[in-house]
Amino acid sequence: MYRIVLIRHGQSMWNVENRFTGWTDVDLTEDGYGEARKAGKILKEQGFDFDCAYASVLKRSIRTLDIALDEMDLMWIPIEKTWKLNERHYGALQGLNKQQTAMKYGEDQVHEWRRSINVSPPALGEDDDRYVQDLDKYKRLGCTIPRTENLMDTSKRVLEYWDAEIKPMVSSGKRVLISAHGNTLRSLVMHLDQLSEADVMALNIPTGIPLVYELNEELHPTGHFYLTADGSTYKHEEMSQVARPSD
Amino acid sequence: MYRIVLIRHGQSMWNVENRFTGWTDVDLTEDGYGEARKAGKILKEQGFDFDCAYASVLKRSIRTLDIALDEMDLMWIPIEKTWKLNERHYGALQGLNKQQTAMKYGEDQVHEWRRSINVSPPALGEDDDRYVQDLDKYKRLGCTIPRTENLMDTSKRVLEYWDAEIKPMVSSGKRVLISAHGNTLRSLVMHLDQLSEADVMALNIPTGIPLVYELNEELHPTGHFYLTADGSTYKHEEMSQVARPSD
Repeated sequence: MYRIVLIRHGQSMWNVENRFTGWTDVDLTEDGYGEARKAGKILKEQGFDFDCAYASVLKRSIRTLDIALDEMDLMWIPIEKTWKLNERHYGALQGLNKQQTAMKYGEDQVHEWRRSINVSPPALGEDDDRYVQDLDKYKRLGCTIPRTENLMDTSKRVLEYWDAEIKPMVSSGKRVLISAHGNTLRSLVMHLDQLSEADVMALNIPTGIPLVYELNEELHPTGHFYLTADGSTYKHEEMSQVARPSD
Repeated sequence: MYRIVLIRHGQSMWNVENRFTGWTDVDLTEDGYGEARKAGKILKEQGFDFDCAYASVLKRSIRTLDIALDEMDLMWIPIEKTWKLNERHYGALQGLNKQQTAMKYGEDQVHEWRRSINVSPPALGEDDDRYVQDLDKYKRLGCTIPRTENLMDTSKRVLEYWDAEIKPMVSSGKRVLISAHGNTLRSLVMHLDQLSEADVMALNIPTGIPLVYELNEELHPTGHFYLTADGSTYKHEEMSQVARPSD
């Protein structure tokens, strides 16, 4: 009945540096650019077309979308950018090296921050430079920056946006492309497929590989598949193992 | 009271090949990319900031805007893309080499097509490949593609969009950036400055140089200037001579 396509942005500078990113506005690496181009190429070759697209207000998501649409010769379709699709806010961990953080707080604590759905990392202070530097941007976007988030916090704003903005577009027959982040896409998939907590924890969405959801008239999923260059398709179970976690 | 900034996109592939472009969706050259980057850099260095931006649905205009906003770290602001800001439609001349066209039709005829405000080039046939290839795109945008246009035709749609969409944004205090084409920007300047036909014919807006209009409360211009890298500013009279014509 309906189809939507999700893309998780490719490699960013801080993926390479092994740092927690969250809302930090880090750019893609050259490899990340390449992943975006490849995603666009795959979609074009498999005959996908889109009427409108969504991204977060973080440049790694916007750039991924811009590059993929350019490959499809669809730069001209409308794009909505929203902070509600931003990556999960990683609180005071933003900018820290993941390995050093594990050494400081212990592997178990870091594992809990990264993988549990309702435990938040320590909050960023309101006078922390990492918080203050983005105040003007988000004020102009009508958003109060969270000081930290767990996955359920992220999920709440993602689903608000899904319900209010994206669902009506899909229902009206518009073909929608969403370029976003590991945890925003996990939130959406968790909702669509009504995943259990354990399932969500095991779910990692790979970067740069178009994920297609087929939906019925009530916008309930009837199936999903990842699209690869040779035309073969995969399910979450087959992809989650090879994907990097989302932070 | 208010300020808007206009940018004419930089060099395209068909500028280099000396062909009439119009609505043909030709990309920028590397030099064109460079002009866009420089425009963004100048605006950033001179302290300009924007709340929203406009482009046509032609990629040379969208790419110019994307690159300039990237330089300003403003990829996240909303962008509206509209066919009403497309370059003047050049009818059956689109794709033809300018020199060969002059040899075929005579210099005087080509001069009249290029420079007069109310003479249209020959119309594209409705079965012409150059017309048919874009039908789906513009149908989806709710636009009937013109088969040819003179400057007054272009001006009419540009000013419809200016009045309906851009003016209200400016009046509400939003800082607006417009990336468009030679003739769409000439149309806007003609309207703002209430230029005579002779003035319009002498007006060529240079590519890639931010053109700032200062407007009073009624959105009537109180002044304009082009912004250059060393901070010096220029008026139309000083710039028109060095700019290439718009087609």
